[in-house]
Amino acid sequence: MVFKLALAALSVSLAAGSAVAQIKPEDAIKFRQSGYTFMAWNMTRIYANVNGTYNKEEVIKAANAIQAVANSGMGALFLPGTDKGTGWEPTRAKAEFWTEREKVGQVGGAFNKEANEMAKVAATGDAAAVKEQFGRLAKTCDNCHDSFKAKR
Amino acid sequence: MVFKLALAALSVSLAAGSAVAQIKPEDAIKFRQSGYTFMAWNMTRIYANVNGTYNKEEVIKAANAIQAVANSGMGALFLPGTDKGTGWEPTRAKAEFWTEREKVGQVGGAFNKEANEMAKVAATGDAAAVKEQFGRLAKTCDNCHDSFKAKR
Repeated sequence: MVFKLALAALSVSLAAGSAVAQIKPEDAIKFRQSGYTFMAWNMTRIYANVNGTYNKEEVIKAANAIQAVANSGMGALFLPGTDKGTGWEPTRAKAEFWTEREKVGQVGGAFNKEANEMAKVAATGDAAAVKEQFGRLAKTCDNCHDSFKAKR
Repeated sequence: MVFKLALAALSVSLAAGSAVAQIKPEDAIKFRQSGYTFMAWNMTRIYANVNGTYNKEEVIKAANAIQAVANSGMGALFLPGTDKGTGWEPTRAKAEFWTEREKVGQVGGAFNKEANEMAKVAATGDAAAVKEQFGRLAKTCDNCHDSFKAKR
């Protein structure tokens, strides 16, 4: 078996005897930017469904994707040394992300809670409830961005 | 509620009366590159676990993330007009992706099958079985890349 993608192209190496993949700072930034951007696509899909013709299956797929990314443990990608640097683009994480740990935990926890709830509500197919939950979830995205993501 | 991220920054607009978000070609390319790159991170995590110290919970998170991305319906991001263009970087999708639809369906279907199986196997916590399934899943990634993704 040749696993070319991650080990060659992304140059992730494995420390002997360690379960922790040694990720280059620029790859960590790229991975987290990818996770957030992938969630953004899925947010736009839910938004389009609750403001247009509702497709239960599409909303379930989108909500499950957001939930899985939210629960994936992306905090591990905010490694020391990744407060500056360029992944797909220069990181927009503010210095406060590394200094205000308690607040980061609060806004992150709120996001996870609402993402998990979004998946549950999506499964019911209740478009009105999905629209309400979408608002609550989007608010948690905004709360984090307002505090910890630099404006362009 | 202000949903700033996707609607402002990514400029996704909604056609009146349509459930289909009108995605700009460059955003569609960026979204799909994000999905694949996010999966790559999670593949490296599983690889690190089966070749180092095994952490059942981390493998479950990673496998669930891959599964949800695989099942999210990313085919919708290969819109007409996105065979060329730049998202995070110029697309590396080959022209064959749009002409060899049957083969795309086969390799995509194989990938989805193995991604779903990966999540099931991860849930058991059986490291040896996860290692085997990781090999099968990675093979489906490589198969698609060999046929449809241009080398750098």
